[in-house]
Amino acid sequence: MNAEIIAVGSELLLGQITNSNARFLSSHLAELGINVYYHTVVGDNAGRLEDVIQIAEERADLIIFTGGLGPTKDDLTKETIARHLGTTLEMNEEALESIVAFFERAGRVMTENNKKQALVLKGSEVLANHHGMAPGMLYKTEERAYILLPGPPKEMEPMFQFEAKPKLARLLNQADVILSHVLRFYGIGEAELEDRLQDLLDRQTNPTIAPLASDGEVMLRLTAKTNSEEQAWELINEAKTEILDRVGQYLYGYDNDSLASKTIELLKEQSKTISAAESLTAGLFQSELAAVAGASAVLTGGVIAYNEEMKIEQLGIAPELLKEYGVVSEETAIAMAEAVRRKFGTDIAVGLTGAAGPDAHGDQPAGTVWIGIATEDGTTAYRLQLSGMRNTNRLRAVKLALSYIIRTLTDGNARKI
Amino acid sequence: MNAEIIAVGSELLLGQITNSNARFLSSHLAELGINVYYHTVVGDNAGRLEDVIQIAEERADLIIFTGGLGPTKDDLTKETIARHLGTTLEMNEEALESIVAFFERAGRVMTENNKKQALVLKGSEVLANHHGMAPGMLYKTEERAYILLPGPPKEMEPMFQFEAKPKLARLLNQADVILSHVLRFYGIGEAELEDRLQDLLDRQTNPTIAPLASDGEVMLRLTAKTNSEEQAWELINEAKTEILDRVGQYLYGYDNDSLASKTIELLKEQSKTISAAESLTAGLFQSELAAVAGASAVLTGGVIAYNEEMKIEQLGIAPELLKEYGVVSEETAIAMAEAVRRKFGTDIAVGLTGAAGPDAHGDQPAGTVWIGIATEDGTTAYRLQLSGMRNTNRLRAVKLALSYIIRTLTDGNARKI
Repeated sequence: MNAEIIAVGSELLLGQITNSNARFLSSHLAELGINVYYHTVVGDNAGRLEDVIQIAEERADLIIFTGGLGPTKDDLTKETIARHLGTTLEMNEEALESIVAFFERAGRVMTENNKKQALVLKGSEVLANHHGMAPGMLYKTEERAYILLPGPPKEMEPMFQFEAKPKLARLLNQADVILSHVLRFYGIGEAELEDRLQDLLDRQTNPTIAPLASDGEVMLRLTAKTNSEEQAWELINEAKTEILDRVGQYLYGYDNDSLASKTIELLKEQSKTISAAESLTAGLFQSELAAVAGASAVLTGGVIAYNEEMKIEQLGIAPELLKEYGVVSEETAIAMAEAVRRKFGTDIAVGLTGAAGPDAHGDQPAGTVWIGIATEDGTTAYRLQLSGMRNTNRLRAVKLALSYIIRTLTDGNARKI
Repeated sequence: MNAEIIAVGSELLLGQITNSNARFLSSHLAELGINVYYHTVVGDNAGRLEDVIQIAEERADLIIFTGGLGPTKDDLTKETIARHLGTTLEMNEEALESIVAFFERAGRVMTENNKKQALVLKGSEVLANHHGMAPGMLYKTEERAYILLPGPPKEMEPMFQFEAKPKLARLLNQADVILSHVLRFYGIGEAELEDRLQDLLDRQTNPTIAPLASDGEVMLRLTAKTNSEEQAWELINEAKTEILDRVGQYLYGYDNDSLASKTIELLKEQSKTISAAESLTAGLFQSELAAVAGASAVLTGGVIAYNEEMKIEQLGIAPELLKEYGVVSEETAIAMAEAVRRKFGTDIAVGLTGAAGPDAHGDQPAGTVWIGIATEDGTTAYRLQLSGMRNTNRLRAVKLALSYIIRTLTDGNARKI
């Protein structure tokens, strides 16, 4: 099955928003084994929209539309498709009720034009919208299938995933169960990960293995298609075992885990608390932890000592130590971690010092970072030499610090990455 | 002039990356008054690429390609265009030298396939790549113009802006000078801003006025096209005066300013220092300031007191005060700001406390935030009632705190927004 994704909306052509929907849909269609050969973006213009539909019909047997299902006159996706396919629109009572309820919940008066949103292509399967008003549609002709989805990602994404995707899988006569499982790695590059798994990636079929990368993290998404959930997990676990045999030391979590959420989870499990003394990251480390709901159970807080004076006054670091070894040094990172651990009375503490850039810090070039991790068993320090811009370096330092803490909490001590 | 943007790259169709280039180019083309009617994405496949070129030629007189200029066999954009247009590729010596120099700087050995990157369409104007290796091209036929740009945004964006855009403006027989100036607002919604400026927006021609919004900030981009820089500034300043007469109280900066960079700039000008005591934001406020290079001149650091105990122990807040008013209260925000100002000896200090969500904090619902700002003239507190998710609320609280500090530094005291 070959697919084309058509986004409808002049705001995309004016550069006001990015077509993130195309990426989302493409990655899910890849999972289903559907080839996506084209993305098209067209404005809110019936003539041009009909032209692109015609072109798409010559090269795709699944056409997915996003956008243009709203209440205004500019929203003309379903009207244009109905005319093009020689069918009509009819009121869908269930969708109408859901729109009425939506306005009631919001305590707002429903204007007449909102009813238009409940009109659907006659003969289509309606896709419920649980995060907005306009319903989606799946419409089949003998030659091909058309899926209409709303434009806002927060409505489109769950509608595709939970309403359209299972129907598509059935349409493909595919397995009833499609199960994805994400393995999350840190401290290994995408190229090296792919290199170590090359033969697995080459012969992947079920589950498929998709490498993904962002912000220094690498993920593998395993997707199995089969007839039962049990069987799907069997297939996934088999592949997972092979993968972890080779690169298991870089794994830090699964699915929706993040380095921060995994850290919080481990601390909670072990009833441990954490604090930090931050210099170059200036609060970013603690802020990343606090981004996880429930962080307050384990994060006490800490000190941001952005200049030398505050490292002395607020953390009690000896001026002689700073003079002898420098602010960006193993000794300072260790002293910061130990000082804040004492001061805040936590089980674990982190000290972060470095030259974020663009300038060097004394004789330490931009990108040099020292991370100290203090526990009741002692303190270990790690040196990083990063090569990004200032804020990339700051974020990398935070993520690497989190990965070291995860190792410390799981192995007893961190392994150098 | 009507344009179509064609992105070439299978990774886009697999959903591995988003086509952010199309958005960037569209917003710049809109400034030039060029209509963008279509975006197309196609994979690394010569046959399908030639098909989409043919379709684009029927509906556009400017076709901009991104991607497929690199050294590998998959990169086939210029080869396909050359064949399609019946021209050839030739080695561009300047580009070749720049590639050789690139490898020398990186201390890496240049493999033979990298030379391919210096091949350009015969008869094209070469667009220099100052952030990577592959040069871009502008190629004109009698009917239309073709622009070829590299795929990575960090190479494509400056190349378009500084190499291609001026050439395009000349091609359009447009003014020699195109000048943009961005006005940055905080504390006013996009809808309200547009409402107050509706008549100006309706009759805008030169400069054009484009409203943009992101992360609670609203911007207006004024773009004048004329024959001299002086005249362009005259046109812009005239419109700017009219705009600021109506909404000047929400303006915080211009062009590349951010709330954090403006705060740092004002503090430096006034030789003042800043510290913060953070609870719900847990370091995010200070981290935003530290994201600005040179922040260390004014930011001393501060305390993250994430739980009640640390507010008492580390900041010396009276337990009775917390008991009487609660952690999320005007009194606590004020006490936090004053305590950290004393402790770190700074001119200005901020206290941030609140319920980020998803849970309420005692009787304070999620989204309630108190911001205290302490100066030598006394302390003021501001209450926010935010309605976003946990981390949106945390970021909004930080941005509003920055906007209050900017007001305090410019007006002597913050105005409630």
